Parts: sequence; C-alpha cells; structure tokens
Amino acid sequence: MIASSADDITKAVLTEAGRTPDARQREVLLAAVRHLHAFVSEVRLTEAEFFRLVAAIARCGQMTSPSHNEVMLAAGSLGVSALVFRINNDSTISANLLVPSWRLDSPNTDSGASIVCSPTPGEPVLVKAEVVDVEGRPLEGAEVDVWHASTEGFYENQDPGQADMNLRGRFVTDAAGRFEFRTVRPAGYPVPVNGPVGDLLRMQGRHNLRPAHIHFLIAKPGFKTQFAQVYSSDDENLESDVVFAVTAPLVGRYVAQAQGGWQLAQRFVLQEGESRLPVPPITGKSDGPRPQLEVLKSR
Amino acid sequence: MIASSADDITKAVLTEAGRTPDARQREVLLAAVRHLHAFVSEVRLTEAEFFRLVAAIARCGQMTSPSHNEVMLAAGSLGVSALVFRINNDSTISANLLVPSWRLDSPNTDSGASIVCSPTPGEPVLVKAEVVDVEGRPLEGAEVDVWHASTEGFYENQDPGQADMNLRGRFVTDAAGRFEFRTVRPAGYPVPVNGPVGDLLRMQGRHNLRPAHIHFLIAKPGFKTQFAQVYSSDDENLESDVVFAVTAPLVGRYVAQAQGGWQLAQRFVLQEGESRLPVPPITGKSDGPRPQLEVLKSR
Repeated sequence: MIASSADDITKAVLTEAGRTPDARQREVLLAAVRHLHAFVSEVRLTEAEFFRLVAAIARCGQMTSPSHNEVMLAAGSLGVSALVFRINNDSTISANLLVPSWRLDSPNTDSGASIVCSPTPGEPVLVKAEVVDVEGRPLEGAEVDVWHASTEGFYENQDPGQADMNLRGRFVTDAAGRFEFRTVRPAGYPVPVNGPVGDLLRMQGRHNLRPAHIHFLIAKPGFKTQFAQVYSSDDENLESDVVFAVTAPLVGRYVAQAQGGWQLAQRFVLQEGESRLPVPPITGKSDGPRPQLEVLKSR
Repeated sequence: MIASSADDITKAVLTEAGRTPDARQREVLLAAVRHLHAFVSEVRLTEAEFFRLVAAIARCGQMTSPSHNEVMLAAGSLGVSALVFRINNDSTISANLLVPSWRLDSPNTDSGASIVCSPTPGEPVLVKAEVVDVEGRPLEGAEVDVWHASTEGFYENQDPGQADMNLRGRFVTDAAGRFEFRTVRPAGYPVPVNGPVGDLLRMQGRHNLRPAHIHFLIAKPGFKTQFAQVYSSDDENLESDVVFAVTAPLVGRYVAQAQGGWQLAQRFVLQEGESRLPVPPITGKSDGPRPQLEVLKSR
C-alpha cells in the first residue's frame, strides 16, 4: 500500500508483520511494532531526535566487544534485564540475569579455602553458602563459580595489580548442599559511562554505581543454571543500583565476628530446568592498564 | 527501592526517568520506558529471546559503517523512518527521510545536460523538475543534488563498472524554479540482507526490494532541506517497498515519448524552515568489487 497518514504506515507494517508464519515470532514482532510506533506517535519524535537515537543505538553496538556489552548495559540501566528476569522466574528464586565479568575455568578450590591469590586489601570474610531445590532439599554436587571485584572496584581481568584469577574460585557442594570460602569484602563500583549509557544516566541525573556484590554461577544437571549476585546489605547504593538488579533474596547480611572480620551466609534455591552455561563474556586477562573509573553523582 | 514484582521494577525505572530535569527529554524517556516495559511484559519475553534481541541490536551497530547503516535500515524495514517523516511533515510535502547513498560534491551540471558519465545501459529519460514553496511560488536558486542507481541496481560508488560520479549531478533552479536533466531509467534494487534486517525480513517472509527511484536533495536558505525519492509508478514493488517510504506525491509517471525514451515531470514543495545538509553517509567510491545482491522472494 501507499501510505498517506501515520496510521496507514503503522497498519501497513502490522499487516506485513502479521503474515509471519511462526506464531511466537509473530506475537513478539506485532507487539514490538505496535509499541515502537505508539512511542514515536505519542511523543511525536522529531527527525533530529530520531537520527540521534539511531546513532546512539549504532554506537552501543560498536562499543560492544568480547569484554564489554553496551547494549546489555543499556538494557540494565533501563530496567529491562531485571524485568525479563522477574517475568521468567519464581519470586523466591535468588538469582538474576547478569553474567558480565564471568570467566571460564575458575580455579578449583577446596571448601573452606581462600580465593585471594595475590595481596588484596580488604576486610576478611567467611562466606557460607547452601544450595537447595524449591522443596528446600540440599543439592549435592552442584558446581559453583564464585567471583567478585576488589575493594578498589576492579575484577582481576581488568587490573594488572591482581594475579590471574584472583578473587575467583570454583566449588562443589557437599552432601548437605554446602560449601564455604574465605575472601575480602568487595566494594561497589561504577559501570562505564563513556558511551550512550553514560549519556542516558547524565540526562537523568542518576549515579552509575552498583552496590557491592559477590557473583555466583551455580550449575547442576536437571536444574536451571543460576546467576546470582549477593549484595551487601549495608551498601549505600543498595536501593539505587544502576541496573535495578537487587531483589530481597539477594541481599546478604555481613555479620561482624568477635575475632574480627565478617561472616556471610547465603542460601540459593535452584529451579528444575535446563542446565546450560552461557558463553563467557570475558576470554582472559587484559594486557592494558586498569580502566579509568568515572563516578557520576546522583542529583 | 528493592523490587519484588515486575510492576515494582517498571515503577522504579519510571521514577528515575521522571526526575530528568529537561521536560522534553523526560517526556521521551518516560514514554520509551513505558513502551519498552509494556512490550516485555505483554509478550512475556523469555530470557533466550532477550539475549537474542540484545545480540541482534549489537550486530546492527557493528555492521554500521561510513557506507552502510544497519540500524537505519532496521528502522526503515519496521516503518519507523516513514512514520517519523510523516509525523514531522505536512502531507503535501513531497519528500521523505532517507538519504543513504548521497555523496557530497556531485558534479555541477547545466540544466538540460545528461548525468550519464560512462556507458550505462538503460532507456533514456528526460526529467523536468520544478521547485516551489507551499503557496506554489517558484523558488529560484535552489541547489538540487540528483542521483540514482544503474539499471543493474548499483550506485556508482558500489560499482567499478561505472565512472566516478556516474548518475550524479548538481543543478540550480532558474527564475521559474525549474531545471531538467537527461539520464537512464533506474531499476529497483534489494537492500542488504546479510545482517539482522535480513533475518527479520526472512522471518516475515517479506521481499527486500525497493521500487526504482531517483533521489533529489534540495536546499535553499530559509527552507527545510528536502530529501525526496521519486518512484516509478509502474514498478511492481511500488506498494510493497521494503522500507515503507512510498507516498502518493512521490510517485512519478514516466510518459513514453513518440521519438522513443521517456519523460518524467516532478514538482517539489519546500516548507519554510532550517536549511541544513546532513553528514554525507558515503565518503567515496569503493575500491572493491560490486557487492553481491541477494534478492528475497516474498511468500
């Protein structure tokens, strides 16, 4: 058809999309077109705004590399990743979608041992973890990768001052579904703001900080592979995580110990489902210097 | 806040976006978040679908170069560019948003001369153009770039078989707002389908053809710079343009001449506004071979 009004154009696109043979693809595409066109029509997007948006999307792709995904960061900062996770998982599941900074082949570590491989400042903490199914039954033999940033806010792969695989370890749960390890308390850190996500945060007057967290990737055949981040309950950005990822089951309470240091206990609930590891977003340690961290203040 | 439901997450993101100080940025961002979240919630986007969507968006950016913009092509194939143009322009304006394939410094050409610079197969055509304001008054001294693809579907910059700047010319309107030129009738051509846009078209069973057209870029101080494509009324894809760009004022009627060849008359109406040239999407002639054209058949 030859469109003569805005409505005609939307109808023509919906007609084409509506001929998609696969029912699920058709459903998703029709909804995407409907919302995309409604957005443009409602705000009467100007030509200049449209060109800036196209350029920003292209830039997100161009900044995406094996060690950084600006599109995923944009989805995070717009709350889309958190929403997708919430829609697809029971609210009791202590996990979220994020798996940046994961590396394959973390060093196998005995339960109780430390994942600190090179001198790393920070307060000592003993983490006691438990993995159960939705009925609360312990899951033995689950493989758990653990990793976190240093107190300076860098993962080892970004930081020439840390040994390879520092603050990373792989554990296997025992018959009680448990394992424990020693490390230092992590700090929060800023997400990169040198691209379109930075522009978007500045526009809103938002800060770019994630609350301190420890990552867990938990895999056991017959259960949905779980990516969890356990946040520090006393982090000042707990309620304003830049990627909206904090949920109540993921808030960990660090308990001060009489002999000094801290203890953190965390229980992970696995859902039955497909056990599948993601493609590791990071393939090795960077040769370059530490990235410059830039912190935006919230208004 | 620490979100516990999908609604909570959407509200948290809207609260942050709602603190954007600039009123227009706030309006656009709030609408974008609302529609993005409504889309995800309505279709209950799965985690696998989300990751595929993120990867496709990143790929669009990564395929975007000085001579190809996959994000813009995606916007075109989803009818968004056509919608943005329609919203921002009076329906009598004979133009659209697209300006791919434009090169700076087309050769200055006298009215009545040919823009064919190297032997180019095709039926001869005389194009008679007229540029007027919204009151129908002729506009003298408007600068008009004209360009089109060969009958084989290639712009000269893509095709080592054509001379530099073949089928491109720059004209200036006379006191009657007129200029004319000779060329060959262009053919339609397929848009590239080696990326996410190709996947999207295949999914829908759509073809990837644009109807034959001649491009005009018309600039005169005090008037909004106009990018127009004049389509061939007898093109079989006139009503199914892959980027939904055909509008009634842009359909040109080629009239067969008694002495052979064709004549095409076209009138362009300029709106008052800012005269501003875009950044040229193409910076020169490619050294490589012609691109492989792949044609998708519609189902």
